[in-house]
Amino acid sequence: MDYFYGPGRNHLFVPGPVNIPEPVIRAMNRNNEDYRSPAVPAMTKTLLEDVKKIFKTTTGTPFMIPTTGTGAWESALTNTLSPGDRIVSFLIGQFSLLWIDQQQRLNFNVDVVESEWGQGANLDVLASKLAADWAHTIKAVCIVHNETATGVTNNLVAVRKLLDDYGHPALFLVDGVSSICALDFRMDEWGIDVALTGSQKALSMPTGMGIVCASPKAMEASKMAKSVRVFFDWKDYLKFYNMGTFWPYTPSIQLLYGLRAALDLIFEEGLENVIARHRRLGKATRLAVEAWGLKNCTQKEEWYSDTVTAVVVPPYIDSSEIVRRGWQRYNLSLGLGLNKVAGKVFRIGHLGNLNELQLLGCLSGVEMILKDVGYPVKLGSGVAAAAAYLQNNIPLIASRI
Amino acid sequence: MDYFYGPGRNHLFVPGPVNIPEPVIRAMNRNNEDYRSPAVPAMTKTLLEDVKKIFKTTTGTPFMIPTTGTGAWESALTNTLSPGDRIVSFLIGQFSLLWIDQQQRLNFNVDVVESEWGQGANLDVLASKLAADWAHTIKAVCIVHNETATGVTNNLVAVRKLLDDYGHPALFLVDGVSSICALDFRMDEWGIDVALTGSQKALSMPTGMGIVCASPKAMEASKMAKSVRVFFDWKDYLKFYNMGTFWPYTPSIQLLYGLRAALDLIFEEGLENVIARHRRLGKATRLAVEAWGLKNCTQKEEWYSDTVTAVVVPPYIDSSEIVRRGWQRYNLSLGLGLNKVAGKVFRIGHLGNLNELQLLGCLSGVEMILKDVGYPVKLGSGVAAAAAYLQNNIPLIASRI
Amino acid sequence: MDYFYGPGRNHLFVPGPVNIPEPVIRAMNRNNEDYRSPAVPAMTKTLLEDVKKIFKTTTGTPFMIPTTGTGAWESALTNTLSPGDRIVSFLIGQFSLLWIDQQQRLNFNVDVVESEWGQGANLDVLASKLAADWAHTIKAVCIVHNETATGVTNNLVAVRKLLDDYGHPALFLVDGVSSICALDFRMDEWGIDVALTGSQKALSMPTGMGIVCASPKAMEASKMAKSVRVFFDWKDYLKFYNMGTFWPYTPSIQLLYGLRAALDLIFEEGLENVIARHRRLGKATRLAVEAWGLKNCTQKEEWYSDTVTAVVVPPYIDSSEIVRRGWQRYNLSLGLGLNKVAGKVFRIGHLGNLNELQLLGCLSGVEMILKDVGYPVKLGSGVAAAAAYLQNNIPLIASRI
Amino acid sequence: MDYFYGPGRNHLFVPGPVNIPEPVIRAMNRNNEDYRSPAVPAMTKTLLEDVKKIFKTTTGTPFMIPTTGTGAWESALTNTLSPGDRIVSFLIGQFSLLWIDQQQRLNFNVDVVESEWGQGANLDVLASKLAADWAHTIKAVCIVHNETATGVTNNLVAVRKLLDDYGHPALFLVDGVSSICALDFRMDEWGIDVALTGSQKALSMPTGMGIVCASPKAMEASKMAKSVRVFFDWKDYLKFYNMGTFWPYTPSIQLLYGLRAALDLIFEEGLENVIARHRRLGKATRLAVEAWGLKNCTQKEEWYSDTVTAVVVPPYIDSSEIVRRGWQRYNLSLGLGLNKVAGKVFRIGHLGNLNELQLLGCLSGVEMILKDVGYPVKLGSGVAAAAAYLQNNIPLIASRI
Repeated sequence: MDYFYGPGRNHLFVPGPVNIPEPVIRAMNRNNEDYRSPAVPAMTKTLLEDVKKIFKTTTGTPFMIPTTGTGAWESALTNTLSPGDRIVSFLIGQFSLLWIDQQQRLNFNVDVVESEWGQGANLDVLASKLAADWAHTIKAVCIVHNETATGVTNNLVAVRKLLDDYGHPALFLVDGVSSICALDFRMDEWGIDVALTGSQKALSMPTGMGIVCASPKAMEASKMAKSVRVFFDWKDYLKFYNMGTFWPYTPSIQLLYGLRAALDLIFEEGLENVIARHRRLGKATRLAVEAWGLKNCTQKEEWYSDTVTAVVVPPYIDSSEIVRRGWQRYNLSLGLGLNKVAGKVFRIGHLGNLNELQLLGCLSGVEMILKDVGYPVKLGSGVAAAAAYLQNNIPLIASRI
Repeated sequence: MDYFYGPGRNHLFVPGPVNIPEPVIRAMNRNNEDYRSPAVPAMTKTLLEDVKKIFKTTTGTPFMIPTTGTGAWESALTNTLSPGDRIVSFLIGQFSLLWIDQQQRLNFNVDVVESEWGQGANLDVLASKLAADWAHTIKAVCIVHNETATGVTNNLVAVRKLLDDYGHPALFLVDGVSSICALDFRMDEWGIDVALTGSQKALSMPTGMGIVCASPKAMEASKMAKSVRVFFDWKDYLKFYNMGTFWPYTPSIQLLYGLRAALDLIFEEGLENVIARHRRLGKATRLAVEAWGLKNCTQKEEWYSDTVTAVVVPPYIDSSEIVRRGWQRYNLSLGLGLNKVAGKVFRIGHLGNLNELQLLGCLSGVEMILKDVGYPVKLGSGVAAAAAYLQNNIPLIASRI
Repeated sequence: MDYFYGPGRNHLFVPGPVNIPEPVIRAMNRNNEDYRSPAVPAMTKTLLEDVKKIFKTTTGTPFMIPTTGTGAWESALTNTLSPGDRIVSFLIGQFSLLWIDQQQRLNFNVDVVESEWGQGANLDVLASKLAADWAHTIKAVCIVHNETATGVTNNLVAVRKLLDDYGHPALFLVDGVSSICALDFRMDEWGIDVALTGSQKALSMPTGMGIVCASPKAMEASKMAKSVRVFFDWKDYLKFYNMGTFWPYTPSIQLLYGLRAALDLIFEEGLENVIARHRRLGKATRLAVEAWGLKNCTQKEEWYSDTVTAVVVPPYIDSSEIVRRGWQRYNLSLGLGLNKVAGKVFRIGHLGNLNELQLLGCLSGVEMILKDVGYPVKLGSGVAAAAAYLQNNIPLIASRI
Repeated sequence: MDYFYGPGRNHLFVPGPVNIPEPVIRAMNRNNEDYRSPAVPAMTKTLLEDVKKIFKTTTGTPFMIPTTGTGAWESALTNTLSPGDRIVSFLIGQFSLLWIDQQQRLNFNVDVVESEWGQGANLDVLASKLAADWAHTIKAVCIVHNETATGVTNNLVAVRKLLDDYGHPALFLVDGVSSICALDFRMDEWGIDVALTGSQKALSMPTGMGIVCASPKAMEASKMAKSVRVFFDWKDYLKFYNMGTFWPYTPSIQLLYGLRAALDLIFEEGLENVIARHRRLGKATRLAVEAWGLKNCTQKEEWYSDTVTAVVVPPYIDSSEIVRRGWQRYNLSLGLGLNKVAGKVFRIGHLGNLNELQLLGCLSGVEMILKDVGYPVKLGSGVAAAAAYLQNNIPLIASRI
């Protein structure tokens, strides 16, 4: 039934789904259970408490929805907004594009603020829009924290500051799919109203759980929001939260235990250590790209992403060929360039449960592929640059000493 | 992290989620993979072909959606209907009630045909409605094939016949959540336009995949349907079907392999043998209930369900106490009575990957619980009645001889 | 690759290997590890401490050997005895026979004390032998605590008493393969010098670990024992125990984690509760056999085994046919009659991680098989007898309330 | 219960136990089964047939013993030899030393032919011994094909040639623990009489199965061999082979399914491709060592091992510190130097189910560790040397194209 992937481990470096650590695979290796027994609600309760920690919120209300990131988007939008509502949304790559497409199809009045792919959100435009909006017609500002297609991390603090500076009451909705649990993310401190992620990203689980967290202000908004919704309706969850049984429909027992194990691992490492590790692996990757003489698709350092790096290839190379070679020859899975950057970039995902030697193995593979396709790379150069940085910066993990 | 469930296996007899067979658990015991590699689409293709077999359709278009049955309902409705559309829907228990609630919240004009709980759909009312509907204002007839709350199986052939008799063009939408892969179900032959199920029911997988299958007529309708939808929109799937990459958003790699294993098991046993086995276990359960002197919630034999039996307890017993005892004392998970029949019935799910001795173990447990709660049952009586029937009717499985 | 075993769970009621609980399966679902890292010795240390608890010894030295019960026998004998040593050994069934065969092939001078199969060890003969042995030529008394072939439990306290009464210094070697972790077993209190078990029995793990525990007296004897041994030599273990690395050769990482999980489960349930549960299931099984009008192979109540019941079939039935039917028709695995009782008995193993409804499911299957093969059983009779007892005797498990 | 090993995969590069591929882990993720059912013997039969292929024998008789390599040694010796028999045995490192220790403790008259650690077997000495042995007092020549402690591969063809040249009838016993399934090994062609391996080496399974294969000549010898043996006695196996039930005592069901999956993977890749892959990874590792300016413990190219490389560190570095660092800081498991080379060498195991990028990840880790401990390595140098070779030599695997 399975394809033969060749010997050894697959080197999974797409920016999602990412590697699942063994303890999570183990925790999910189980039969179904009655989700109406006393055990599942008791466990769900701990999950709802603990999941707030990865959003850094104490006041938010989390929803663990049997869906993907796309469904989580829909949940965030339809529960807080009404058809026709004006929203400002930033288009900076394929995933922000898809979210905007969803926003439009859900009949919101979307004010698209476009940037060149490789740049972050144009906050100057946001500033002017907010400045001009005396009437508070803008109901929400929607932003993808980390654009997975281009490896661009937006500055959420700056967005918050603009909203505050203009005293603007718009909801602040954030796609944290490729950032939460990997990049610095502070829902309460940054005044985020809805934040969301998916299980298969930095949580390092299988796909299937969209986690959405709503601020008190978003919860309030949800009472007025007229968007049609049933499956994604927070009200149904709240009803069962109040009853103490938690689930309006059948959850995946396996994903609940998987989430428990994933959170335990993250807390054991320490969320701040996890974030620091992503910073380290991001930096190491960029040093390798530089050593290869290739360009980062991300145009300025302020937008560098610590979860995914989109590498621009020279015009005479088709980046899809690099991805194809990686899979065929080296059992290495890299991310394709999408849409506007198709054929022009390939992507290295360095998020989730991953360590330094895994990354260096990946980088050594990329070097060989680059050579395969005719790019004059010096083998070992990227690994050397990355390793030089890593060797000075890997902290000793107390629990391993 | 886990609760201690007491020694031995949990006896899982809720009507979903059901027991996952070992080969499916094994198949899912794996790391994530890049779903954009050549392997995942190749596998998806075989799944889409094979999944049609469990619907008994050759002309239908299947969608494997990362959602639950509730989401599958929403997908069926929003892709084929427009707000304000008149639909006829049968209320015969908790799950048909929930579907109707969804239909109303999605702004359809729902003509609810209610039956007493324990009865099947009132087809006489449907007949009059169809007869009266010269103008074809009814856009769809929605029916739950097997009402899991009361253990009632509706007669889909009769519904089809009425539509045909009246030459009525309404779409025929069927919830097959607790029937498909367990009860006789023939999408093409019975002219069903949308049929749907969930992975955690008779497919015996974890929760997380809603499978929806649309007839050509439903596909046609989807082009005109004005219901707002994005996550559940079939169009997005079709776009990726055409591209040969199949997935508009990240699927659960584990569920794909799990589905492959689940289908392999079903085909190995033989779909007709699977259905016959459910018939056998259903009959055996009803014989036990009769031997205990208890009433089946299902009022007539024509509606008897071969996937779930709702057992009515005497008024002096609270059926919730039976479920609670089962879990606490015997590691047996039974289904609660829901809504109108809360406290009055408990439910035995006998669907999915299950065999005779598992059922008899469950029945022996129910007998002890009945005695625990003061019902004057003769221990062994139900088991004897069921076993007498089973011993005469279990066929030899060729592959085990 | 797998056989198709038919739908549902296999009902595994051979007296070993027994059912593995999910937490143990999960714990073993892992990659290999370097057993020379700091982690494996640290874990081994806790295992060696905890494993003593199932032997009820504080002074014993345990050895966890990558072998089966047969290897554990060899380890017990060769480490404590020298070729030509006189030992008294009881022949009461197939497994004591095999051990005696091993003793003879290892060149001990075996004084075989035979009983009819179905009877326990003849302690009167032991008494006379001890009485006559002024010269202390008997170096060891070897006894199988629970003879798995006939379902006979020997009285170890009585053996100890005889040794004490005669002030005899012989080593007391006990095969606890189908008793330890299931029956009352007290190494220190009963003055047992070497006790042993296998992982696939009441510990409910896969086969592959033989656990041998030696008293200080046995350890002392091992210094003098001249039997040739290398793989099974305790000295090699002791050397690595002293070094703190514990393993003279590569252990199975998976079995170590499996043992950790198995012990955790046993301690969570409580060892005394585990033993009480076996007593309960043994009694229930015997009540069923009685209700069927069949004879227990065990001839007197004092020898009744709570881990395995050998059921005598009427002369016109071949017990192998019962086992064959169980496997083919009901997915039920029963134990064959062995050697002298081949064709005459079939065996129900009721040891390990097992609960009441599992047993009742098995008993209902046996009833159907008995009818299949022409024995005039009343279906339900055995289940009723067992359930009547169980329903009055299952305690509430605190952790499940 | 588990240690926290830090984030990401453990990089397991000890020369055993090695990485288990996912399909093998999956195959073993299962409950126990009755090994006396019709299914287990049927499967065992295919395993016994297929396992001969990895030994490249058609005439050999394989034994799959629930033990480790140490037990397999004992099985090879005791079944073919009698106490006092003269054997020639080569001491070239820790594992040959341990085997010789076993041979002596089993009371053979061992003619030890010692070489400096880092050199292969001294075949000149063998030649003289054979030449002098007119009386054929030498009953066996014992050799470790690949000495895991020093990374030395002996020349079995040359040994065979000497035996033939002198027309010497001595048995030819070969430890293939770290060679079979990885290095070129031809039991029949090279006239090997007993060959053996362990499951946790190139088969890439958990520890627990010792596989011994005996030539017809060895089988004949076993009839005369007077060494005391029971657990390891081939006779017991043969008895059950003849009965068609195959197992004299309980096998590990999990290891049987694991072996099935492991063999399937090897045959899918192609045994010759597997061997070529080991040759490639061995060569790449040695190129890296050279690039680092370090010495291979193996003194001549003719002895280079393609499964393990022992790297000599400069005198001012303690090689144990390198191993400790690897584990603590990089989640990398390397092999310690043993006995005479303790502190002087560390070992990189590159055997089993492994691919190029895994190895390069390991090499990048070794570089960082070398720098950590003060060795003036140029980061990236070893990776570059290895990658330059690999990039030119990795073949396209047909099934992945």
